[in-house]
Amino acid sequence: MKNMIDPWGSVLVKDYEKVIDQFGLDNFNPKLFPEPNSLMRRQVVFAARDQGQIGHAILKKKPFYALSGIVPSAEKIHFGTKMVVENLEYFQEQGAKTYILVADLEAAAARGISLEEARKRAMDFHIPAYIALGLDLKKTFFYFQSDNKEVMNKAYEFAKKITYNEFKAIYGSADPGKIMSTMVQVADILYPQFHERMPGVIPVGIDQDPHIRLTRDIVQRMKSEKFFLPSAIYHKFTPSLDGSLKMSKSKPESCIELPEDPEKVIKKLKKAKTGGRETVEEQKKKGGEPEKCIIFELEKQHLLHDDKELDQIYKDCKCGKLMCGEHKEKTCQRMVEFLAEFERKLAKAKKNVNKLKFIKFRN
Amino acid sequence: MKNMIDPWGSVLVKDYEKVIDQFGLDNFNPKLFPEPNSLMRRQVVFAARDQGQIGHAILKKKPFYALSGIVPSAEKIHFGTKMVVENLEYFQEQGAKTYILVADLEAAAARGISLEEARKRAMDFHIPAYIALGLDLKKTFFYFQSDNKEVMNKAYEFAKKITYNEFKAIYGSADPGKIMSTMVQVADILYPQFHERMPGVIPVGIDQDPHIRLTRDIVQRMKSEKFFLPSAIYHKFTPSLDGSLKMSKSKPESCIELPEDPEKVIKKLKKAKTGGRETVEEQKKKGGEPEKCIIFELEKQHLLHDDKELDQIYKDCKCGKLMCGEHKEKTCQRMVEFLAEFERKLAKAKKNVNKLKFIKFRN
Repeated sequence: MKNMIDPWGSVLVKDYEKVIDQFGLDNFNPKLFPEPNSLMRRQVVFAARDQGQIGHAILKKKPFYALSGIVPSAEKIHFGTKMVVENLEYFQEQGAKTYILVADLEAAAARGISLEEARKRAMDFHIPAYIALGLDLKKTFFYFQSDNKEVMNKAYEFAKKITYNEFKAIYGSADPGKIMSTMVQVADILYPQFHERMPGVIPVGIDQDPHIRLTRDIVQRMKSEKFFLPSAIYHKFTPSLDGSLKMSKSKPESCIELPEDPEKVIKKLKKAKTGGRETVEEQKKKGGEPEKCIIFELEKQHLLHDDKELDQIYKDCKCGKLMCGEHKEKTCQRMVEFLAEFERKLAKAKKNVNKLKFIKFRN
Repeated sequence: MKNMIDPWGSVLVKDYEKVIDQFGLDNFNPKLFPEPNSLMRRQVVFAARDQGQIGHAILKKKPFYALSGIVPSAEKIHFGTKMVVENLEYFQEQGAKTYILVADLEAAAARGISLEEARKRAMDFHIPAYIALGLDLKKTFFYFQSDNKEVMNKAYEFAKKITYNEFKAIYGSADPGKIMSTMVQVADILYPQFHERMPGVIPVGIDQDPHIRLTRDIVQRMKSEKFFLPSAIYHKFTPSLDGSLKMSKSKPESCIELPEDPEKVIKKLKKAKTGGRETVEEQKKKGGEPEKCIIFELEKQHLLHDDKELDQIYKDCKCGKLMCGEHKEKTCQRMVEFLAEFERKLAKAKKNVNKLKFIKFRN
């Protein structure tokens, strides 16, 4: 598994620094970006590819794009998805042409639902959820994969540019279904450049780097087409409440989804692993270990956007002033507020789906 | 290479009977088909899959389809292509809904030409050539792969139905480009059934069987969709003029293309391998061996549609009455006539491309 991360499975990435080395990434540099968001400031966004060209485009007010995809199969979205949307929102505010592709083909093929059902789920829930999380629907272009002939046609062309061995070296396996969906993703990533060459940034979890790498490899083999190499920024995983690296649906008691019943979430948070000591006495004496605390990580990644407040919590924990029980109470409160706001915004967004801007394709 | 034929390369198939066994084909049975054409009567069409359902549909006047593809990359078409068109023509006359897909995506991706150029070549030459060879343009539906979103979307779905190992077992390799083009071909083969379930027949050279087999495997895994398993009929290769099994562009001196300068063709035919003996005396005594004669095979496959006349030639050769020189003269004459007629029909067909019926796709 050296040099390889499986974007479909959940693979533990124990040391993010090691990943940067192994994958040939750059450390993310928030100084390149005006008014970086809290994920960027806190190194939750920890790595990047070609971040300079995006920072430059923002600074010089040149055209660039930000893009992400939605697979509209599940009934809920993973709590970690919130980070993708926050980063999209950031670039959108900085002037990015923003694209959301709805991977209805992938949802249909992987989950055995019809394309119609996949579209319905996207319209009824997934897109509204993204809007509830901060995406500006007025500034976003949407398309369904199954509508986008150009993407499919280009995927066909791109596939000829790589060999089985190269694919396998990146992904570890090469089943036809995986190849097909990957090649379409490569084309999706470049789609905004089909009609206007410009830099673009894909905000992703680190497990998605293989797609970015493959896309960049292919662009370099399509020299005559002069695509810009896509940039990417990578955020860390949201950890599982039990302390393991990645929150996963396979452990529902350690995973938060959106939407989810606040009472259930509180119950889960109460059991979450913290950086507390064996006894209260010990903790008062030695202080806690916020670096190991899932509750602190949730606040850092998701619930607390004020850096000073977060810093105060860190210090109070470190010096043994803030005990885990008290801290969890506050975090639960913030979580309940967030969930209530999400539900409220979701309800509103559902009413606005008729205002979505879908790309019009010529036949 | 057991149980495997590479539809992209030229692999010698030494014993057609063996192929029938190995691939699990049926012997072609011309009695199942009303007024079989000369290829069928002479066992140039030698094998089939599910031929019964097509014979039945013809007999009962039930809907069925015949389909073939054009890859519009080369400047000329292979002489052997004539057989595909003749078989299409046969089914068309028997009432088949006839489809020609233009594999512009394949042409563009494999040859590095633009989609526009691929389309231009199809309209300027390949489609007119098919019409010149006998396809009834008024009864044929055409589409360009790059226009057909439904085919691309279905290819995506089909790809999830097979594994890398299954693909490799059929094709011997599994490069992403090959997988992508194969999955699209599978969807092309089934396309006429997307909106109307009916049997269909694909007339192909035996080297194309992997696509048929894979399509049938996939249909069997899509039970809920109730596609008819596609039927196929298989014709033998047109042999190389030097006597090897398959006429190939890689040996231009042993290959005939359409169109080609008659004088050049005659020069090539003069050098073609025959079933003649070492000396005229010996041949007069023992008779020739038409089974081994490329000239005879060309007449059987392509130039002489009258069975009685062909039979007479066979007998005259066998009994030592017809010498190779004399036979070649006549064959050359027939070839020149055929080439002239082809050119004449091609010129006419080029003027009629505006009458082609392209399938209209909704967006």
